[in-house]
Amino acid sequence: MGVKEAVGHVGNLLRKPVGIVNGAKNAVVNVMNRQPLHTAGMTKALTSDNMNKHLKEMQYAVRGAVPIAAEVIQKELATGKHNRPYNEIVYCNIGNPHSVGQKPITWFRQVLSLVNCPSMFDNPEVLKAFPKDVVERSLKITGEIGGGTGAYSHSKGVLSFRNSIADFIKARDGHACDPENVYLIGGASAGIEKVLTAIISGPKDAVLIPIPQYPLYSALITILGGQQVGYYLEEEKGWSFNIVTTREVIKKARRDGLNPKAFCVINPGNPTGQLMSQQDLTDIVKLCREENLVLLSDEVYQENVYTETKKFVAMKKVVRDLGPKYDDFELASFHSTSKGLVGECGRRGGFMELVGFAPDVEAEIFKHCCMGLCPNLDGQVLTHLMVSPPLPGDESYELYTQETTGIYDALKRKANMLQEELNSIEGISCRPPEGAMYAFPQIQMPPKALAAAKAQGKAPDMMYCLALLEATGICCVPGSGFFQKEGTHHFRTTFLPEEDKISEALVRLKAFHLSFLAKYA
Amino acid sequence: MGVKEAVGHVGNLLRKPVGIVNGAKNAVVNVMNRQPLHTAGMTKALTSDNMNKHLKEMQYAVRGAVPIAAEVIQKELATGKHNRPYNEIVYCNIGNPHSVGQKPITWFRQVLSLVNCPSMFDNPEVLKAFPKDVVERSLKITGEIGGGTGAYSHSKGVLSFRNSIADFIKARDGHACDPENVYLIGGASAGIEKVLTAIISGPKDAVLIPIPQYPLYSALITILGGQQVGYYLEEEKGWSFNIVTTREVIKKARRDGLNPKAFCVINPGNPTGQLMSQQDLTDIVKLCREENLVLLSDEVYQENVYTETKKFVAMKKVVRDLGPKYDDFELASFHSTSKGLVGECGRRGGFMELVGFAPDVEAEIFKHCCMGLCPNLDGQVLTHLMVSPPLPGDESYELYTQETTGIYDALKRKANMLQEELNSIEGISCRPPEGAMYAFPQIQMPPKALAAAKAQGKAPDMMYCLALLEATGICCVPGSGFFQKEGTHHFRTTFLPEEDKISEALVRLKAFHLSFLAKYA
Repeated sequence: MGVKEAVGHVGNLLRKPVGIVNGAKNAVVNVMNRQPLHTAGMTKALTSDNMNKHLKEMQYAVRGAVPIAAEVIQKELATGKHNRPYNEIVYCNIGNPHSVGQKPITWFRQVLSLVNCPSMFDNPEVLKAFPKDVVERSLKITGEIGGGTGAYSHSKGVLSFRNSIADFIKARDGHACDPENVYLIGGASAGIEKVLTAIISGPKDAVLIPIPQYPLYSALITILGGQQVGYYLEEEKGWSFNIVTTREVIKKARRDGLNPKAFCVINPGNPTGQLMSQQDLTDIVKLCREENLVLLSDEVYQENVYTETKKFVAMKKVVRDLGPKYDDFELASFHSTSKGLVGECGRRGGFMELVGFAPDVEAEIFKHCCMGLCPNLDGQVLTHLMVSPPLPGDESYELYTQETTGIYDALKRKANMLQEELNSIEGISCRPPEGAMYAFPQIQMPPKALAAAKAQGKAPDMMYCLALLEATGICCVPGSGFFQKEGTHHFRTTFLPEEDKISEALVRLKAFHLSFLAKYA
Repeated sequence: MGVKEAVGHVGNLLRKPVGIVNGAKNAVVNVMNRQPLHTAGMTKALTSDNMNKHLKEMQYAVRGAVPIAAEVIQKELATGKHNRPYNEIVYCNIGNPHSVGQKPITWFRQVLSLVNCPSMFDNPEVLKAFPKDVVERSLKITGEIGGGTGAYSHSKGVLSFRNSIADFIKARDGHACDPENVYLIGGASAGIEKVLTAIISGPKDAVLIPIPQYPLYSALITILGGQQVGYYLEEEKGWSFNIVTTREVIKKARRDGLNPKAFCVINPGNPTGQLMSQQDLTDIVKLCREENLVLLSDEVYQENVYTETKKFVAMKKVVRDLGPKYDDFELASFHSTSKGLVGECGRRGGFMELVGFAPDVEAEIFKHCCMGLCPNLDGQVLTHLMVSPPLPGDESYELYTQETTGIYDALKRKANMLQEELNSIEGISCRPPEGAMYAFPQIQMPPKALAAAKAQGKAPDMMYCLALLEATGICCVPGSGFFQKEGTHHFRTTFLPEEDKISEALVRLKAFHLSFLAKYA
């Protein structure tokens, strides 16, 4: 099966399920399973027609058709027999730093290593290889966990870790944080799922999400059987928030018979990379109170800020700065070990803080956490380490600082380089990424390209991204996967690969884009 | 707040949400959050009345009212100031071996340690501390993962791990296994959730579950908005399967307007500990085909078999032994790193194998896995290690064998001891646990105890377990949390704590039980 067929096939599987369902009489080869199907002419118990329709409707572009096509090409490249003008896929579709060359931070891994293998504490020769603070911290953690990393913890996570997170939040925001409100989670996705599950109760329940948004939100809302209501970020003003149009969107949703219950903010923005001002965040909090909405604040990129002119402000601080009248304001905020300078996506770690929730509602969310038993302990350990890194005077401090600074500086350079180069290309415009790990450039699509996409039954930016992948090996995500203003076309690209790879990729991207313009001139 | 109030309070929160919801005008102290609520007389956006009703209805007894009460007592014990006749809680409520003294298996941890800290490969002094096969295996895994344990993997898990799992399944069952059908999962719970999510599509969709069952099943079915239909295991015949009554249950469900779509088996049984025969399993497969049901087989205790007269048979083998007519039979089976002799609950590792699913349906399940990005890498590494342990000739083989044999022998001794002692107590009868980690004894409740429970508004075995905890510090789970035949009363207890602790606990349990009988005589 060639790439084009695979893309078509997988695209169909993911969007419009193929027709081999009830009543198929012939043996059909299952391309995913490589097994004969329906050998006895049986019908399937579970079919595309009778399965969970919400799951079927759900879309998740970050691992959608373009990355799946990239996998097929990668297998072809691995054979060494190909005529392509590139030898590897440059994966810019997902914020997965370690997969594209970012080295793990030594200190985190040293502690994880000792905590997971307590027998090493008995071997002085081995311990000599670790800085003193690593050994001390590992011993402390081992004592605090009790049953070790192999035991289920409390369903909210290990108490001492929650204490350290509460200290981190307090230091960050200048406001109190109760560790009982802190929940360790298996990545931000898992926490967001828990909160949205509690909120969405029926098909008219609606959740406000930014447009463009990170597809986890639309995916969860769809699976949970709710409705998404988009509020537009204004690209021409640096993807900024507009309270006037947003208020109108909420009112319209109510007029349409929907029941808006929650409001999601992603700050710094994904895929848009903007950093929101305290004024905009304050407006959002006040709007949520006016409209009686629970606020979800996705802050996984809080360490990824590259602009010199603004600072990240946590939503918790915004709420508490508003004074006691907002003490009972319902806010869920999320952080993760996958992003920041840590970049440990595979660890599935993070935390959420729930404040102001009615105690009976919070008890239900906690019960849901209990059903999953606990987040994995390595992820918990890493979350604790992320919020309580080595201090000046610790043996590890210098190396830790050097490594984190190195990662930060490189991200900042790459963000700037990417933006400048993209803006130098005819027909592409890109807002400077103030934060996060992504650029979200707009493509001016020639009318003939729009017609071609229509003829192919593809979103124009999906057609663009598939052609870009095919021609250059660069794997991005079409803007349509994140939603965008009608009539605009974008793609999301990370700036995570190493600098020379981004440079080379940009040369190929520019050439591709010019040929794309020429083809559809 | 004393224990009794806490139990009452938390019990209420978990079952019948308290009434501090809409319109409360006074400041109410939130006992969970220790924060003033409704300070401004505001109503909450999210209340017990408008939240997800399925989540509210969901119950999860394993971490329900009894363990929550145990936590409160533990805090009291920790102060040292108490008049209780015990100094610690004996946690028998959950299969969490490392939390009650089972040591991690050295080999697993050594490999995890090296894989997580690649810089150790550069230090010959450190490497000397590890057996040669540990170093070799760790290097091999590091090469195979590519981006390391800090990167998202493929959403099905690392390919080489899936290959090793396929080899394990093939060797176990004597039938082929395609690694494309193997999915690494974050514990069996996560996999079961994915499959049930695909299956349940509406409020009439029903899933057959054993009674007694593991509460994850009832919890997931409730959250997903489906219906559970119980088929009874026959306690008097060693919790055995009865195809006649089960067939009748399915027919009755259809008559009642339900739409049975799937059938769940737990083998070895949880909480019941029985090991099912190949004949019973074959009957189930044939019944599922007759009734057009997807089969889910929970096999997380496949290594925990203590009877000499029977062997564990995997459902995949049962299906394949039936020949080509069953090649397209839809089976999902689950295994975990949390149980067996590994007992690494905190790692959240495991795998599922999906066979016979329609390709478009399997694509939707895969898409759902993609939404969660990937299971944590440490759990994936451990799953790989579980299915490919050291071999004779490897430096680690002897210690590994010694440790696993030690754990197995102790579990077997404890299972026997527990069963014998429980059966020696008047009014308690217990089927011998052939497998898993639990005994599920039946209590003959005196009529006055039943009346007292009714007066307290508690299930009789909930009243029993709370009193047992209060009097002895032994934390078990009431049978009502697992469902049981009307008019019978049970509790589930693990046999995981160390032998002397189980012995002592049994003495206290016996004394408590006699006083319970005397109280309600």
